[in-house]
Amino acid sequence: MAKSTFEYVKKFELDDTILPNTWMVVRLDGKCFHKFSDDHNFAKPNDIRALRLMNFAAFSVLREFNDVLMAFGQSDEYSFIFRKHTTLYKRRAAKLLTTINSKFSSSYVYYWPKFFEREPLKYPPAFDGRIVTYPSEENLIDYMKWRQADVHINNLYNTTFWTLVLKGNLTPQQAEKRLCGTVSADKNEILFQEFNMNYNNEPEIFKRGTLLIRKSISNDQEHQSVIIDVHDDMLRDKFWVEHSSLLLEKKIKTNLVYEGPITDIIQEQKKHIKK
Amino acid sequence: MAKSTFEYVKKFELDDTILPNTWMVVRLDGKCFHKFSDDHNFAKPNDIRALRLMNFAAFSVLREFNDVLMAFGQSDEYSFIFRKHTTLYKRRAAKLLTTINSKFSSSYVYYWPKFFEREPLKYPPAFDGRIVTYPSEENLIDYMKWRQADVHINNLYNTTFWTLVLKGNLTPQQAEKRLCGTVSADKNEILFQEFNMNYNNEPEIFKRGTLLIRKSISNDQEHQSVIIDVHDDMLRDKFWVEHSSLLLEKKIKTNLVYEGPITDIIQEQKKHIKK
Amino acid sequence: MAKSTFEYVKKFELDDTILPNTWMVVRLDGKCFHKFSDDHNFAKPNDIRALRLMNFAAFSVLREFNDVLMAFGQSDEYSFIFRKHTTLYKRRAAKLLTTINSKFSSSYVYYWPKFFEREPLKYPPAFDGRIVTYPSEENLIDYMKWRQADVHINNLYNTTFWTLVLKGNLTPQQAEKRLCGTVSADKNEILFQEFNMNYNNEPEIFKRGTLLIRKSISNDQEHQSVIIDVHDDMLRDKFWVEHSSLLLEKKIKTNLVYEGPITDIIQEQKKHIKK
Amino acid sequence: MAKSTFEYVKKFELDDTILPNTWMVVRLDGKCFHKFSDDHNFAKPNDIRALRLMNFAAFSVLREFNDVLMAFGQSDEYSFIFRKHTTLYKRRAAKLLTTINSKFSSSYVYYWPKFFEREPLKYPPAFDGRIVTYPSEENLIDYMKWRQADVHINNLYNTTFWTLVLKGNLTPQQAEKRLCGTVSADKNEILFQEFNMNYNNEPEIFKRGTLLIRKSISNDQEHQSVIIDVHDDMLRDKFWVEHSSLLLEKKIKTNLVYEGPITDIIQEQKKHIKK
Repeated sequence: MAKSTFEYVKKFELDDTILPNTWMVVRLDGKCFHKFSDDHNFAKPNDIRALRLMNFAAFSVLREFNDVLMAFGQSDEYSFIFRKHTTLYKRRAAKLLTTINSKFSSSYVYYWPKFFEREPLKYPPAFDGRIVTYPSEENLIDYMKWRQADVHINNLYNTTFWTLVLKGNLTPQQAEKRLCGTVSADKNEILFQEFNMNYNNEPEIFKRGTLLIRKSISNDQEHQSVIIDVHDDMLRDKFWVEHSSLLLEKKIKTNLVYEGPITDIIQEQKKHIKK
Repeated sequence: MAKSTFEYVKKFELDDTILPNTWMVVRLDGKCFHKFSDDHNFAKPNDIRALRLMNFAAFSVLREFNDVLMAFGQSDEYSFIFRKHTTLYKRRAAKLLTTINSKFSSSYVYYWPKFFEREPLKYPPAFDGRIVTYPSEENLIDYMKWRQADVHINNLYNTTFWTLVLKGNLTPQQAEKRLCGTVSADKNEILFQEFNMNYNNEPEIFKRGTLLIRKSISNDQEHQSVIIDVHDDMLRDKFWVEHSSLLLEKKIKTNLVYEGPITDIIQEQKKHIKK
Repeated sequence: MAKSTFEYVKKFELDDTILPNTWMVVRLDGKCFHKFSDDHNFAKPNDIRALRLMNFAAFSVLREFNDVLMAFGQSDEYSFIFRKHTTLYKRRAAKLLTTINSKFSSSYVYYWPKFFEREPLKYPPAFDGRIVTYPSEENLIDYMKWRQADVHINNLYNTTFWTLVLKGNLTPQQAEKRLCGTVSADKNEILFQEFNMNYNNEPEIFKRGTLLIRKSISNDQEHQSVIIDVHDDMLRDKFWVEHSSLLLEKKIKTNLVYEGPITDIIQEQKKHIKK
Repeated sequence: MAKSTFEYVKKFELDDTILPNTWMVVRLDGKCFHKFSDDHNFAKPNDIRALRLMNFAAFSVLREFNDVLMAFGQSDEYSFIFRKHTTLYKRRAAKLLTTINSKFSSSYVYYWPKFFEREPLKYPPAFDGRIVTYPSEENLIDYMKWRQADVHINNLYNTTFWTLVLKGNLTPQQAEKRLCGTVSADKNEILFQEFNMNYNNEPEIFKRGTLLIRKSISNDQEHQSVIIDVHDDMLRDKFWVEHSSLLLEKKIKTNLVYEGPITDIIQEQKKHIKK
């Protein structure tokens, strides 16, 4: 039973270290979530329970991995950004990728009942993942903008589509045809003229997705670092100027002060804060 | 909101296709499972509930991915072997790795209550993963033998260690000292002489881990392909001779007939089998 | 002048070890050799001097690297096959690739005057290279067949094309048009009917390229291992049956006996053989 | 002779594209150059002919590849830096690496007689190569400083060592022992006190290596872009401030004006400059 006879097979494990001094982004995507959302009666075009569960699962990741600087989520995808100089798991790609992916996936199932009280989970979902490397701050910011621009484009389309279907009584085929070739202004116009609906008034979480970052809040006279969930506009450069300290290596425990509403995610952390 | 301005960031996603005509193995390992098992009162040295849950989560993976030929698990680790010529996800490493990892992780949480009735899951666990490539059948078989030899070595040690602690009233430190430098024969002797315990009579699942493979069973006069969970001795070449058809590409739906006991995992599938 | 301040940049050198137990093939290709051959008045369709120089440069590589099992060349390309279990340079891809590539390139220039006596080299040529990995013997043999089939296809085309141009007085455009859509049989027919030329009688080096392998020859009653240059037909399986010992790991110093003509390459080695 | 039957082997060629927006550095090193320099009677500690040949071979590379921004050489090594946004060969690592390596190697042999008039080249040398990626300008500058600090350290050591041997009549072993544990100041002192030699007066090419960059010179009232060979001190930040335009993407044809001496390398290009 000489284990050593077979141990040579370890040599087939090749090194997958990621280049130092780069921004590593792990992006997760729900596998077959079109079917999954139908099977679990997700509201259309957005299910607030599903979004809040995604956020909470991502929060569960950030809470455990201090080297994750921020995360951004929308629909059934979530991106996690490591601080630039992290040496977590020696920057081995598979290790970083799978640990984040696994924690997120198990958290999604674990916290399901917290958000879907009357909708039991019918089967365990899966998320695929990839790890991408960005050399410069500019590339990273463009990545964040890319994902947020994607929220806008998809959500405006989906909102108009489902309004045409649910309130306009069009079939999905008719709605699709109606929207074919339209630009943003057209869709805004349809919503406003035909359904008296101002897209701008839609919830920020739908229009912009959710950003998880670390800020400090005042907690009984002390400033405490917490993970906050916000829906800021990252497409404006103003955001990046205000949050420039976020990307600076030495400031992972940011001194950015948060004074917004106490969300569930923030509340969750206050429990653990020592007085 | 020109998404296209930022879309260039997609070009940073590099190709990670795995060499064709090789055996790809995904191995998952529990993250900090020493603590996790303490937190959830796992029996020592083996918790049958935990092992059965691992097996069921792995079964959940095999049931979904027909290109996974077999899987082998022990303790808090599980290996999944893809059929040699699979083109699933175009053999992209991250995609294969994360999809298996995620499905396993979410299944572990989802099926937890099925096996741990009175022990609630306190927090979502995480599993890391790696994907390793083996060029030859011989290398793959040695990989399987390596993992099974590992079960034997660990289980004999753990069984003796915990017997010394739980029945012999040694402290963990004393037990560790006692076992230092001993070989297999010594441990067998300790168990037999001092505790009247024949290691050979220990359950196969503890001594050999669990292999999930696809065989056919007779089901109301029809032969049906099912995933079976067995504890065969893969260290003997006899096993590989008998199962040689398993590794042949054209025989993924094997004609190997299974006539063993109907386990929970097999029973689970019979429900879905049409009459 | 603290070198150590900057030495961290070494950490950006990532590991590129190639999977063990695989066949590594380095293939070199002349860069812009169409122009290079025009600039140096290469005979069309084949320049025997150029082919012999390529072979000699490849021989110079094999003579230095014992872990190169064989090499196959045609036109301006050459493939080098390492023995399967080589651990040369710890199987690091860049190191293997560049060392072979560099030795070949410098040899090409160094030995130029030996083959091009009256044609001075006008400028230093360049060869690009790649390293490809094959898991099985079957894949490797198919690689060799692929390259040799390529010689046949190209040479039959080029021979017919240049015969039409040089003897048939067609312009290159007319010759190209004439050959458009023709199959092998058509080209053979053109050569035979119009130019009374039997393609089968063309030199083997043109039709089949050159294979460099290690065999033994009798040298004053002793058997000595030498690198031989032959033009065998590797497309026939007979070749691989006869040379099966070549691919067996333990037989790198093959016991295959060579009894063919003493080529320049073989002669070159006899000088160094001790009596 | 169906080539297509075997063509599947092309699928084993995996993608090796390098991350966009990074500095790619190709570094070449002479293989067994200790022996090579002995075999060709290189002067100790520096052979000016050998250094000039290295520079000329590197110049031959820069002249051909406009996307090589600069190069730095010392002893038997040379580094080539691509401009950050090059898309040459689609940034495929092996292609970039081997093309540079091959051109350099063949040039080294080709130009050998130009510098070693009375010393025939005995055999073709080889250079290995690697390609390394740097995400930031700071990393790249530190790379350049690292290599130049290396020149200083090695040259001061070698100068002192060979002075002790050649003028001080020590054996190499004695010289080595004498220098063991000495710092820079000690070596300067040995040279000055014992051999009346001021290390600072040593030729810049020995102390600092050679940098090849593109600048413009006035040529008959016109400004022409040329590759210049200088021995500037890159360890001082002043150099990088003055040459900051060099690293800016849009300025590959730099407007830095060169007013130094007309070296052989510059002279070589004037021939080709149109009036």
